[in-house]
Amino acid sequence: MENTRVDFLYLDEEEMIEAGVKDMHQCVGVMEEVFSLLGQGDYIMGGKNHNSHGILISFPDEPQFPNMPKNGPDRRFMAMTAYLGGRFRVAGEKWYGSNKENLSKGLPRSILMVMLNDADTGAPLALMSGNLISAFRTGAIPGVGAKYLAKKDSRVLSLIAAGVISRTCFLSLIDSRPGIETVKIYDIYRESSEKLAAFIKENYPSVKEICVCGSIEEAVKDADIINVAASGKIYPKIEERWLKPGAFLSLPAGIELEEEFLTSGRCRRVVDNWKMYEAWSEELTKPYWNIMGLIGTKYLDLIEDGKLSVSQIDNLGEIIAGKKEGRKDDREIILLGMGGMPVYDVAWGFQMLENARKKGLGTTLHLWDRPDMA
Amino acid sequence: MENTRVDFLYLDEEEMIEAGVKDMHQCVGVMEEVFSLLGQGDYIMGGKNHNSHGILISFPDEPQFPNMPKNGPDRRFMAMTAYLGGRFRVAGEKWYGSNKENLSKGLPRSILMVMLNDADTGAPLALMSGNLISAFRTGAIPGVGAKYLAKKDSRVLSLIAAGVISRTCFLSLIDSRPGIETVKIYDIYRESSEKLAAFIKENYPSVKEICVCGSIEEAVKDADIINVAASGKIYPKIEERWLKPGAFLSLPAGIELEEEFLTSGRCRRVVDNWKMYEAWSEELTKPYWNIMGLIGTKYLDLIEDGKLSVSQIDNLGEIIAGKKEGRKDDREIILLGMGGMPVYDVAWGFQMLENARKKGLGTTLHLWDRPDMA
Repeated sequence: MENTRVDFLYLDEEEMIEAGVKDMHQCVGVMEEVFSLLGQGDYIMGGKNHNSHGILISFPDEPQFPNMPKNGPDRRFMAMTAYLGGRFRVAGEKWYGSNKENLSKGLPRSILMVMLNDADTGAPLALMSGNLISAFRTGAIPGVGAKYLAKKDSRVLSLIAAGVISRTCFLSLIDSRPGIETVKIYDIYRESSEKLAAFIKENYPSVKEICVCGSIEEAVKDADIINVAASGKIYPKIEERWLKPGAFLSLPAGIELEEEFLTSGRCRRVVDNWKMYEAWSEELTKPYWNIMGLIGTKYLDLIEDGKLSVSQIDNLGEIIAGKKEGRKDDREIILLGMGGMPVYDVAWGFQMLENARKKGLGTTLHLWDRPDMA
Repeated sequence: MENTRVDFLYLDEEEMIEAGVKDMHQCVGVMEEVFSLLGQGDYIMGGKNHNSHGILISFPDEPQFPNMPKNGPDRRFMAMTAYLGGRFRVAGEKWYGSNKENLSKGLPRSILMVMLNDADTGAPLALMSGNLISAFRTGAIPGVGAKYLAKKDSRVLSLIAAGVISRTCFLSLIDSRPGIETVKIYDIYRESSEKLAAFIKENYPSVKEICVCGSIEEAVKDADIINVAASGKIYPKIEERWLKPGAFLSLPAGIELEEEFLTSGRCRRVVDNWKMYEAWSEELTKPYWNIMGLIGTKYLDLIEDGKLSVSQIDNLGEIIAGKKEGRKDDREIILLGMGGMPVYDVAWGFQMLENARKKGLGTTLHLWDRPDMA
């Protein structure tokens, strides 16, 4: 008789921490594997071109029903789905609700759950708290980028904004470029900058100098690596003249840069996965940049306006898979645009499932012994 | 201090049954509520027009990687997301993997999970086994349709195909039209027809006559209600000349009907939600009908070919909400096309959560006491 029993593992946030979800070094390594698979093409995401970020539920500005949720900062639901190959060979999704008002309740802006599924049968393998998966996988990508795109001898790091994502980005950047000696921080709330500065001072003695800056310009000047991870609708503006030759700009969130610079030969444009932006161009309406402020969506606008061509954009995965050149010299200014992808969540979730199994963590949930209808 | 603890309920398949997931009478009532909300507009689904069925992962016919899943019958992953208003006021999703090969393992074709989430914070409220939610909510829609669109004195029911979905459709149709005395069944596997016939005979003494038919034509002739729920790539073909005046065709799956009939004044075209088909027309590529065989996707093709206009299609929700007329007379032939929507899963899942709470069913899962990062 067939064994039709289905069980799967549940991991709450504490168990995720025990499984190592906050191990940024391992996370950077796993994300590097993901980009290698992306570069080879051994993955499938949702949507028409198989590269969709996910499916979004957004709410109206003026609901016609008294109980209907109203649009507000970061308010949405999103399902992000992927199959990932290589040693992962697993399907999965991240499903979350987000609402800035959560912060006033002591809850995170977004509450995220990750599910992994057998790639053949679709049976659930695991359900896990996704908040730390998401924060760490997002933070890890700048570190992966820095490995290939930042100068080897990078010494000065600039962090624009000082929230949760800036902190996780810092963790990966210092992991990839341990020679960083100076960190310059700017946030519109000085208190946030000081909190992040204190965290770095306490945990990273190799960082000799930490400056809390009064402006973006001050924070950006002389930096070898600039990471911009601000939330909110006003995207930090950075001017080309502030940039040092050879700077690596890590851009996981909204950013404003001069069009003339972006379309010039004076910068190299790398993104996490250009096809995902192409999927967005079908799912959203122009101007795309105004929606989330991502540099990749700015490229969409510039391409539709005839000011940039697709051939001027490189994918990080192709560089890691060896299909395209990495940094060419110490004077090249490189912009890495990131939009976030479900393959990251699936990969980091899968690693947590492996770690949890080894450590015997989690609760086994039973789905059925024999399905009622089959 | 804020209460930041998050718990949610897990219900396995057996607990779902105890909660009443197989109570078709209640399910038809809840689905009727859903259509009323759809008719009013008190819901939001995913995608650009807020009416997307969901996001699909499909696999290539010729994978370039040895381990990558290969396209095959019903092989896909899908996330279906929705917010539903009214007394539900909840967000949620159904996430599933599907693969016909599961059947050879004693597993259902699709393995489905439903999650419900607080519409404001996004926090999970419940995770539940979704297979019976899906089978029953799909089966319930023909019953909702029959209430408004089948003749009151319908006596003869024709079931084309005799699988799981045909059985659940039968349950709702007999619930809405208890006067049914004759059931005619056709399936390409006679054994399947006989199994369904035996089930009806055993459980529904009000059905006086059950015929296992040798052809679609034989099964369809003289029927007041015709339900077509075949899986697979060959869509059952029904000819207009076989149809009795006043017939109600309930079409939850692939179907072939003559174009000349479909574009004529001799039938009325009702669908579950026309906007969902419009979303499909952006997510898929023409010809749409060939992809799933749904009558609604056939209308998309006919509209793009200039043979039909949107004004010739009515939504069931508008009829139930009283915005459009139901059946006009006893001679009208009415086709109800269905494509399936995540609002059904959210609604029936929500009802199960309420039922389970009342009965004290399920396992409480803990997410966190205080989130690690907020």
